[in-house]
Amino acid sequence: MIARTIGAALTLALTAITANAQAPSWTVPAESARCPSKWGAADERGSMNHQKPAAVQKAAQLIKSGEVIELAHVLGPSMAFFGTRRFDVHTKRTFMNQFSNMRGSNEEIIITELGQVGTQFDGFAHQTHLDSWYNCVKVDENSARDGFKKYGVHNVGALFTRGVLIDVAGFKGVEMLGDNYEITVEDLEGAMKKQNITLAAGDAVLIHTGWGKLYGKDNPRYVKSCPGLGVKAAEFLISKDPMLLGADNWPVEVAPNPDKQLSLPVHQLALVVNGVHLLENLKLDELAQKGVSEFAFVMQPLKIQGGSGSTVSPIAVR
Amino acid sequence: MIARTIGAALTLALTAITANAQAPSWTVPAESARCPSKWGAADERGSMNHQKPAAVQKAAQLIKSGEVIELAHVLGPSMAFFGTRRFDVHTKRTFMNQFSNMRGSNEEIIITELGQVGTQFDGFAHQTHLDSWYNCVKVDENSARDGFKKYGVHNVGALFTRGVLIDVAGFKGVEMLGDNYEITVEDLEGAMKKQNITLAAGDAVLIHTGWGKLYGKDNPRYVKSCPGLGVKAAEFLISKDPMLLGADNWPVEVAPNPDKQLSLPVHQLALVVNGVHLLENLKLDELAQKGVSEFAFVMQPLKIQGGSGSTVSPIAVR
Amino acid sequence: MIARTIGAALTLALTAITANAQAPSWTVPAESARCPSKWGAADERGSMNHQKPAAVQKAAQLIKSGEVIELAHVLGPSMAFFGTRRFDVHTKRTFMNQFSNMRGSNEEIIITELGQVGTQFDGFAHQTHLDSWYNCVKVDENSARDGFKKYGVHNVGALFTRGVLIDVAGFKGVEMLGDNYEITVEDLEGAMKKQNITLAAGDAVLIHTGWGKLYGKDNPRYVKSCPGLGVKAAEFLISKDPMLLGADNWPVEVAPNPDKQLSLPVHQLALVVNGVHLLENLKLDELAQKGVSEFAFVMQPLKIQGGSGSTVSPIAVR
Amino acid sequence: MIARTIGAALTLALTAITANAQAPSWTVPAESARCPSKWGAADERGSMNHQKPAAVQKAAQLIKSGEVIELAHVLGPSMAFFGTRRFDVHTKRTFMNQFSNMRGSNEEIIITELGQVGTQFDGFAHQTHLDSWYNCVKVDENSARDGFKKYGVHNVGALFTRGVLIDVAGFKGVEMLGDNYEITVEDLEGAMKKQNITLAAGDAVLIHTGWGKLYGKDNPRYVKSCPGLGVKAAEFLISKDPMLLGADNWPVEVAPNPDKQLSLPVHQLALVVNGVHLLENLKLDELAQKGVSEFAFVMQPLKIQGGSGSTVSPIAVR
Repeated sequence: MIARTIGAALTLALTAITANAQAPSWTVPAESARCPSKWGAADERGSMNHQKPAAVQKAAQLIKSGEVIELAHVLGPSMAFFGTRRFDVHTKRTFMNQFSNMRGSNEEIIITELGQVGTQFDGFAHQTHLDSWYNCVKVDENSARDGFKKYGVHNVGALFTRGVLIDVAGFKGVEMLGDNYEITVEDLEGAMKKQNITLAAGDAVLIHTGWGKLYGKDNPRYVKSCPGLGVKAAEFLISKDPMLLGADNWPVEVAPNPDKQLSLPVHQLALVVNGVHLLENLKLDELAQKGVSEFAFVMQPLKIQGGSGSTVSPIAVR
Repeated sequence: MIARTIGAALTLALTAITANAQAPSWTVPAESARCPSKWGAADERGSMNHQKPAAVQKAAQLIKSGEVIELAHVLGPSMAFFGTRRFDVHTKRTFMNQFSNMRGSNEEIIITELGQVGTQFDGFAHQTHLDSWYNCVKVDENSARDGFKKYGVHNVGALFTRGVLIDVAGFKGVEMLGDNYEITVEDLEGAMKKQNITLAAGDAVLIHTGWGKLYGKDNPRYVKSCPGLGVKAAEFLISKDPMLLGADNWPVEVAPNPDKQLSLPVHQLALVVNGVHLLENLKLDELAQKGVSEFAFVMQPLKIQGGSGSTVSPIAVR
Repeated sequence: MIARTIGAALTLALTAITANAQAPSWTVPAESARCPSKWGAADERGSMNHQKPAAVQKAAQLIKSGEVIELAHVLGPSMAFFGTRRFDVHTKRTFMNQFSNMRGSNEEIIITELGQVGTQFDGFAHQTHLDSWYNCVKVDENSARDGFKKYGVHNVGALFTRGVLIDVAGFKGVEMLGDNYEITVEDLEGAMKKQNITLAAGDAVLIHTGWGKLYGKDNPRYVKSCPGLGVKAAEFLISKDPMLLGADNWPVEVAPNPDKQLSLPVHQLALVVNGVHLLENLKLDELAQKGVSEFAFVMQPLKIQGGSGSTVSPIAVR
Repeated sequence: MIARTIGAALTLALTAITANAQAPSWTVPAESARCPSKWGAADERGSMNHQKPAAVQKAAQLIKSGEVIELAHVLGPSMAFFGTRRFDVHTKRTFMNQFSNMRGSNEEIIITELGQVGTQFDGFAHQTHLDSWYNCVKVDENSARDGFKKYGVHNVGALFTRGVLIDVAGFKGVEMLGDNYEITVEDLEGAMKKQNITLAAGDAVLIHTGWGKLYGKDNPRYVKSCPGLGVKAAEFLISKDPMLLGADNWPVEVAPNPDKQLSLPVHQLALVVNGVHLLENLKLDELAQKGVSEFAFVMQPLKIQGGSGSTVSPIAVR
C-alpha cells in the first residue's frame, strides 16, 4: 500500500449572536490563557500530580480506630441515572462443567456507561470546551472508537490521600440543601470554621449537601436539579490545590446553573481549565452523621483503557 | 391477582457411571459435612468476617514509606479472556451542549462480564457444586435474571488488611513456573521460610507464579493452562484462615488440574466449601521484583448488585 | 480427560394451594394430551408446515396492483417496550480509511432483546408450560447460554402466504377497542361476515383492534393492558389451522386476562399446545383504513441462531 | 435558557503528498459533479425510487411454481465478521410467571452491529467521501449519538422487484473465483449472454462469485480478501440503473482493490456517488446450482431508526 500523507486542518469558527443577551457570568479562558496548564504542556495527570508517597503517609497517619466508612452507592438498574445512561445486568444460566466435581459456574454480562454511572470519578477525557480538552489537546487527535488516546482513566492510578468533608448541609442546619441551592464561598468558609478544619494541597475535598438522600429513593427529583458548588465556590476550592472535588449529588456543582447561559461550568473549570478531578454521586450520610471531618481517603478507579472516567467504590478510613 | 402458593421441589439425581475409572483425588464434601459453614448457617460473608477495624489498624501500621504498588492490569479489549468473555468499549460521539460555554461531553458504553474480567475478585455467587452454593443455598432460590439474591458482591465491602506475597517463582529460582506446574505445600513453606514470613488469620495471601508475564503478551498461552495451587496447597493455605487467596494467573489454582476428573476444584474448595474469596489475574511483577513480602492490601470491589464478582484495581501500600 | 456419564433427572413438584379459589377457566392440557403435536413427535415447525409452494402461488395470485403496505413500526428507543426490554442504538464515530479515496465508514452497535422487540414474531422457544415446550421438549435439554437448541427462529424461514385482516374495531364501529376488551368468537364471525371473507388453512390471520394508535404515542397505556383475543376466540381461530395469528397490540391476546388466575394463556395455547406462531405490535392502520381484507402476506424473520423470535418488517401486497 | 445562535464552519484541508506516486485509477467526483444526484437535490431514496407498484407487478409475474429460495446465512456468533464486529446472543433464564397456567418465558439479549453483520443491506448513511454523504449532506449535520438523521434504513421500505443472478463463477467454469479476482465488464457480459438474460432498470442484480462457500467454514480467508466487482464492472452495472447490487462476498466488490491507493471504491461509487444500495454476504449457492437467472426478489430491511443498514433475510421466489 502506498502511504498517504494527510495534513488535516480543522477550523471551527464560532459566531455567537449575542445581541439582546447579557454577557454570561463566566467564560472558559482562551487557550492561550489556560494552556499549558500549571503542570506543564505535556502533563496528562493534573491534580493527580499530588499523589505521591508523602500524601499516602499523611493519610495513613489519620487512621486510628481502623473504622472504614463506605462512600459508594450500590450499582444497579434502579440507581439514579443522568440522561439515557444505564446499568443492565443479565445473569447467565448456570454452566455445569461435566467433571466428577460437578462445578457450576455463574456470571453476568453487564452493559453500562461504565465511566459515568453510579458513584463516579471523572477523568479529563470526559469534558471539553468546544474541540479542546485539558492542556488544549484537540478532540479529533484524541478520539478513537475504542477509547481516548490521552487522559484515559487507566493512567490515573489509586488515590490515597487526606480526605476532608465540608458539611454544608450541617452548617446550614438542614438535612438537605434546596433543589438548586448554589453553595457560596461563605458557606464553605463557615462550615470549615464550624468544623475546625483547613484545606491543604492534595486533599480530596468532599461536600455534603444532603442531596444523596434522594438517590435510589426519588431518582427523577435527584437528577432534575441539585444543590452544589457555584463557580465562585469552585474557584475558591480549586485555589486550595485539591486532588479532587466530590459531592453527594450528580455533578458536584449546582444544576442547572443560576446563569441560564451556562451548562455545568464547574465541569469545565475543574476538568478542562485546571485539571482537577471530580467525584459524583457520593454516599456521604454516614460521614456527616458521625461528624467525621478528616480521614484517609482511598479510591481505586478501574483501569479502563482510554476511559473517560470510572465508577468507583471509595472509602474513608479513620 | 389471586396469589398462588407454590411449593417447588427440585431433585437432581446424579448417576455417575464410574466403572473402569479411578476414584477422583478430591470430592466436594457432602452438604451435611460442609453446611452450616464455620461462620454460621445464615452467614453470607465467609472470609470477609475477618474485615474488622483491627485488620485495618494492623495493615495501616505496615505503611511506612507511602509507596503504592498497583496490582491490576489495564482493562481493555486486548487483555486475556477466558472463554467468550470480553470487554468492549464504544466511545460515543462528543456531545456539544449548546450553551455559551460550549461544553463538550464524552463517554463510552461498555459491554463486559464485569464480574469476571481483568484483575478480578470472585464472590460466592460465582461457583456452585451442582445446584448448591456456599452455605448450601440452592441455585433456583438464589437466581434471578438481574443478579443473585445472596452473596451479591455489593455486600462484600472494601478489603483493607495485611497482604502477604508468597513468591513461589522466586523460591524455585525461575521467572515463571511451568505451564501446568502444581504448587505444593512444600513450595509454600519453602518460599515463606526463605522470605521469613508467616501467615495470620485474615491475611490477603498472594501467590507469585510469574505467569502474569504472558498477560496481554501471549494471551492464548496464558489462558490455555497455568501453574497454580493444587488442592493440597490450597487446603494448607485455607487452614491458615485467610481473607482471600490471589495469584498472577487466571484461576489462582493449577489448570487443568492434574487429576483429569476435576474441573478447577480449588474454586469449589475456596468459594463453595470454605467461603474464602479468590483474586485472579493479578499483576505481581513489581512486588516480586522489589522483594516486598508484607504490605497493606487495599481493594474495593465494585458494588454490583447481586454480582458474581468484580473487576478490581487493588493496591499494595508499604 | 476421563469422560463422565451423567444421568440427570429433574422433578418439579407443584403443590398449588387452591383453597378458596375457583378453578381457573382454562388449563394447559396434560403432556399426554398435547404431545405429540398433530405434526408428529419430532416436529419442530408447527404451523410453518403450511409454508409450501402452493401457499406461495395462492398468495402471489392476490397481487394485482402491486401496492405494498408496510405492517411494521419503526425500531427505535422510543417505541413501546414490555418490561425492561430495550433497543439501544449507539452510532460509532466515523472511521476514515486513510487511502486516496478517503472513505469514511459509519455503523452502530445495537443492544436489544432482538427476538422480542418491535413488530415481532414469536417462535416456539419463547414460551413454556412449566419446564416443557411445544412437543414436550424439556427446558434443561433445550437451553444453552447462546441460544435454544430446538425451535430456533433461524429454522423458520420466510412466510409468503395468504393474509387476512379481521377488522374487529371496524366491526364494532370504533377507532380502538377498549383497554381490556376481550374479543369473542361472535366478534370474529361478525367481522368476517361484514368483510365477506372466510379463513383457509395456512392463512396469516391479522386482527385489527385499533390499539396500535397508541404505539409510540402513549407507550405506558399501550403496554399496561390491551384489547385482544380471549381464549375462546383464539381456539376458534386455531381450529381454522392458520400459519400465524397477529394483531396490532403487544400480545395478540387480551391482557390482563379477565380470569385473574391466567397469565397470557393464548401464548401457551398457540405456541406450546398447538404450535401456531404469533405476530405482535403490528401496524395495521393503513390496511384497515383502505379496507383491505385479503392480500399476499410476506415476512422474513431474521435467521437468529437459536433465537426465541425475531423483530420483523412484514408487508401486505395486493 | 437563552438560545445561542451558533454558526459553525468546518474546513478540512487535505494535502496529499503524491510525489513518486502514480495518480489513483479512480477518484470520487467533486461535489459539484456528483450533487445534486440524478434523483434531485433533496432526494434521500436513490435507487429505491425504482420501488413502485409496477416493479412489484413485474416481479410477481415471475412467480410460477411458488418455490422460495433463501438467500441469507444464519445469524450467529460463528459467522464471518469484518473487523471487530460481532453478534452476541445471551439467553436469559426462563422466567416463570406464577399464575395457575405456569407460563415460562424465554428471550435473549443480543449485542451486535445490527446494520452491518451477516447477510446485510447497506443504506446511504454507511459511507462517506471525507465528510460528505450521498447528495452532499455533511457528516456533522447528519450524525447523532443514536442514529443518522438522513438516510436512516427505517425509511427504505421493502424491496419487491425483479431479481437477476449473474453467475460469473459458472461463466468462468469454476466453483469459486480466485481470492482477489476482479470481475470485469467482459465477465458480466459473457455470463449474461450465456444465461440469456438482460438487465432492466430497477433490477436487484446479484453476482455469484462462489466465495460464499467459505462463509462460516473458513472465516479468516473469507474476510481477508475476496473476488468481486472492479470499478469498471460496477460502473457498467450502475449504468443499467439497478435497485441494488449484491454478491456472495463481504463487500460486493473485489478486495483489496488492485489499485493499492483505493479502499473499497465501489462502496463510494454505489452508495455515495450514485445512490445505489449494496447487499453483502448473500448465500447464492442454491440459486446458482439450480440455474435460476431471474426471479422475484423480496427483502425486508429492519426499520432501524437512523440505521446505517440492516441485517436481512432476503428470498428469491419463482
